[in-house]
Amino acid sequence: MLLEAIYHQPKSHYAYAYDAETLHIRVRTKRGDMDRVSVVWGDKYDFHEETITTKKMSVFAQDALFDYYEAEVKPPFRRFAYAFKFEKEDRVIFWNELGFNEGELSSGGLGMLWSPSGMFEFPFLNTIDVNTPPDWVKDAVFYQIFPERFANGDASLNPPEVETWTADAIPTRSNFFGGDLQGVINNLDYLKDLGVNCIYFTPIFEAHSNHKYDTIDYLKVDPQFGDNKTAKKLVEEAHSRGIRVMLDAVFNHCGYYFPPFQDALKHGENSRFKDWFHTRGFPLTASPLNYDAFGFVASMPKLDTEHPEVKAYLLEVARYWVEDVGVDGWRLDVANEVDHRFWRDFRDTVKAANPDAYILGEIWHNSLAWLEGDQFDAVMNYPVTNSILDFFVKEEIDAQTFMGRLDTVLVSYPRQANEAAFNLLDSHDTPRLLTIAGGNKKRMKLAALFQLTYTGTPCIYYGDEIGMDGGEDPGCRKPMIWEEEYQDKELFHFYKNLISLRKNHRALRDGTFRVLSAEKGKKYVAYERSDELHRFIIVMNSAENRQTVTLSDLGTGTFYNLADDQEQILENGRLHIDLAPLEAVILKTK
Amino acid sequence: MLLEAIYHQPKSHYAYAYDAETLHIRVRTKRGDMDRVSVVWGDKYDFHEETITTKKMSVFAQDALFDYYEAEVKPPFRRFAYAFKFEKEDRVIFWNELGFNEGELSSGGLGMLWSPSGMFEFPFLNTIDVNTPPDWVKDAVFYQIFPERFANGDASLNPPEVETWTADAIPTRSNFFGGDLQGVINNLDYLKDLGVNCIYFTPIFEAHSNHKYDTIDYLKVDPQFGDNKTAKKLVEEAHSRGIRVMLDAVFNHCGYYFPPFQDALKHGENSRFKDWFHTRGFPLTASPLNYDAFGFVASMPKLDTEHPEVKAYLLEVARYWVEDVGVDGWRLDVANEVDHRFWRDFRDTVKAANPDAYILGEIWHNSLAWLEGDQFDAVMNYPVTNSILDFFVKEEIDAQTFMGRLDTVLVSYPRQANEAAFNLLDSHDTPRLLTIAGGNKKRMKLAALFQLTYTGTPCIYYGDEIGMDGGEDPGCRKPMIWEEEYQDKELFHFYKNLISLRKNHRALRDGTFRVLSAEKGKKYVAYERSDELHRFIIVMNSAENRQTVTLSDLGTGTFYNLADDQEQILENGRLHIDLAPLEAVILKTK
Repeated sequence: MLLEAIYHQPKSHYAYAYDAETLHIRVRTKRGDMDRVSVVWGDKYDFHEETITTKKMSVFAQDALFDYYEAEVKPPFRRFAYAFKFEKEDRVIFWNELGFNEGELSSGGLGMLWSPSGMFEFPFLNTIDVNTPPDWVKDAVFYQIFPERFANGDASLNPPEVETWTADAIPTRSNFFGGDLQGVINNLDYLKDLGVNCIYFTPIFEAHSNHKYDTIDYLKVDPQFGDNKTAKKLVEEAHSRGIRVMLDAVFNHCGYYFPPFQDALKHGENSRFKDWFHTRGFPLTASPLNYDAFGFVASMPKLDTEHPEVKAYLLEVARYWVEDVGVDGWRLDVANEVDHRFWRDFRDTVKAANPDAYILGEIWHNSLAWLEGDQFDAVMNYPVTNSILDFFVKEEIDAQTFMGRLDTVLVSYPRQANEAAFNLLDSHDTPRLLTIAGGNKKRMKLAALFQLTYTGTPCIYYGDEIGMDGGEDPGCRKPMIWEEEYQDKELFHFYKNLISLRKNHRALRDGTFRVLSAEKGKKYVAYERSDELHRFIIVMNSAENRQTVTLSDLGTGTFYNLADDQEQILENGRLHIDLAPLEAVILKTK
Repeated sequence: MLLEAIYHQPKSHYAYAYDAETLHIRVRTKRGDMDRVSVVWGDKYDFHEETITTKKMSVFAQDALFDYYEAEVKPPFRRFAYAFKFEKEDRVIFWNELGFNEGELSSGGLGMLWSPSGMFEFPFLNTIDVNTPPDWVKDAVFYQIFPERFANGDASLNPPEVETWTADAIPTRSNFFGGDLQGVINNLDYLKDLGVNCIYFTPIFEAHSNHKYDTIDYLKVDPQFGDNKTAKKLVEEAHSRGIRVMLDAVFNHCGYYFPPFQDALKHGENSRFKDWFHTRGFPLTASPLNYDAFGFVASMPKLDTEHPEVKAYLLEVARYWVEDVGVDGWRLDVANEVDHRFWRDFRDTVKAANPDAYILGEIWHNSLAWLEGDQFDAVMNYPVTNSILDFFVKEEIDAQTFMGRLDTVLVSYPRQANEAAFNLLDSHDTPRLLTIAGGNKKRMKLAALFQLTYTGTPCIYYGDEIGMDGGEDPGCRKPMIWEEEYQDKELFHFYKNLISLRKNHRALRDGTFRVLSAEKGKKYVAYERSDELHRFIIVMNSAENRQTVTLSDLGTGTFYNLADDQEQILENGRLHIDLAPLEAVILKTK
């Protein structure tokens, strides 16, 4: 047993409350090292040989180096003292806060009256601390809209020198096409037909640029997009179609033309707003840049969210759009550069306005520090994005690495944060999926199929479903193609069918996910998703040649190929699947 | 290189802000595995080959399995992207969020505009999130008083059937001796003479028992101890002598006679206080116990700190004693069973009343989840207690294990939490130090010497300094011996001198701590504590036979033995120290 590989941290994503009565306990070991791993547990005030329980743990994730074991426990008094038991051949090792002990569980320390000294502890499961993302998020399929480029529904709002909205229009960093909120309202039935049930809007508030990340007034819809009444109408019209709405909160920084910043620019040290920003001298100058900004972008001054006035202003913004306008969630731009204190109060404000609101952080890196129940429900799941692209689209990694990287994400957070994770494949910040795939729609479909049958809430970037392409910003921000002759209808139906399949089967959203094949050096994967109603087996070939995939340990059952309704009878729990290049097969029990 | 042993978690005690401009970055490797470990870092928006820095890390702690490396970094824009570089012989491995890479630093992921994809990140150092315990805690020497047993200053308050206060009085679980706050006031000059500068009181609020952990009224001094005016006078008299006061907050549970609980007992489901508790049925009964309690102790019903009224009441308690009475800190009883939300608001309330108040959690287990800046300043440092006792008093571990266990604590928390950690050797919850030592005062002194020259704030349990003994509760709660003929004056002066030495030399409180000797199988240790003014070398023999200790790598300097002022000249940075059984030697530069 490699002791150096064993890892656990009490009161973390290795030991957390999943709900008001359930704890998840995890431990890490070297991959393939153990025959059996158990958690030995009891009440912390009644921890004796006769009262403790030994529960076998299961491997729930694997990556290149490690196995990750998990067990679910429901301690009757919501208090939990525990140790781990590792077995390999005839060796038995126990592990607790005192260290490793061969053969028997050791306790020790001070002759303390009450505590089982030396055990790990989950001292008490307090409901208020449990991370509970809204239930609806698991069931959602998001659709991301960059509002300047989705649809022009009110020409009277057009910016000056608006470009012509054509299928071959070329977006630049600074041009405008006249997209607006009425345009979205006009096309809600299109979205309903596609089947998505939540829109994620990049910023809609008054701003200078076409992307609106440089906010001027957080309480006002940009006049090019409409007004607050249009926003409210949009929310109502969307809700009436079963579609929710999430807005983009750019609270890390404001725009150059945000009036308080203009005041600080003009009045310098005498400005009553000077402390709203992180300044390094007056007068404020863009070059040399003597105030903190998003990156080094002078037009996006960083807000001092520690300042009580700034905080009060932004929290009122957070409340207003949820409570008064009715939006269902906030996506938080550059979320990890804003202080934790701010986000805790933000959560309180938003959840008070609507306990079912979704709070989604934009974080590209490990996000554990924001996902422990006090801040965000989930984050944008870029590591999953990258893994899907690397395996299905770029062919850069093999099946084992692919699943290992997905598992690394699963083990990085509490399960509920993964269930509510925002799984995107592209966005206004990246090249479009089809472009990353070099125009190969088969690869694009493999990626989308995986995305729509994996844990977490999927998001489709506007226009991907009809075959739009485009490189990095500004290429990925072309105006939506509405001329039907330029839309890929087959692709639309592929997306529509997949979304429908996911929505109709809880197994694909929230069921058990089990890897059936993810071998070293292979370009195909297979996995099962199941709940009490259905079992799905999905087999995907990311190679340019045919593959025969043999699956075993499938138990009993009769599966049908969704494509042709052909029966697939298991023989001794085994199945052979032939796959054409870049083909995917979905099998399902009836 | 053993890759499985390498560990780092971004935004945790492995990567945290020490102050408003300084980050500490840590990484773990297998013990003795690496030749050189570095952190490779740069601004997250300007991360290129030309802009990144490679900084060598140092081993700051070692335990049985691992080396822990640390580096301090001050990123100019308070943003930090980083990776690690491991070198061993001619092998070089880089490690970042994407994994291990032989020979060169890899980045990758989406073609993101701004971010150095794949690096670890400390996204932004927001001052408000920095854990900043009060500065005075590092300089404090605490003295714990169990008020019923320290001194009787006002006989008119005596409980009925009070026992006679003699040196041979026998405490029981239920008897009373008449200690009170006036008794403490009368003896403040004794404490000033001893040199302690902060009193930690176990509960002083109205309660039923002699230990007062079963609170009846949190806003009122127990009538047996005095009244709120006496408490305020005590605080003022203490402050006038440079002595601070910390109280015990028993917020996890109340006493059986707490009026809201009595109301719930009496009126059951109709009680307006029924939701102040965690009930499992009505009427409430002690047997079978149908409400949550501390452990299974029916007389200590657990409070529902999630309930807004309970929370408001307890926060007012927290505010009142700090703001209106002037106490300097709170020790939080059973702190880990109360919800995190409560403690966050508690911190805000207490620090608003006095930003310099100390918030100390009673947690016997890993406490990281409470020490990240939003809840406690520090915790009671039982793992250090146990390590000191196991090495110096019980002879259960060798020098290497001793230092390894201390280092395990150092690596478990951010440095500032260790600097403010509450290092006790005994308390009202454990046998007394002298009793644990089997009456061996030499061993007791070794333990105290280590405690008073180690990182963290030391606490002396009342009476230890004059040689009081006693086993587990109730034995450890004897009335303080005031008859001078029964006090060990020599021991008193030992404590007094040590406290004075610590108070007069910052090196012993807050200086660098360097292990000079902690060998496998050995019963002696040596360490250096130093700052810009002084260097101390402390060599301690925990064995019953003589030892000669050879120290090297001491650089240059002349040390003097504190005991006899004998000069000790280093030869090539080496020193030989002869130690009698259980002897300790303190060497110091002038």
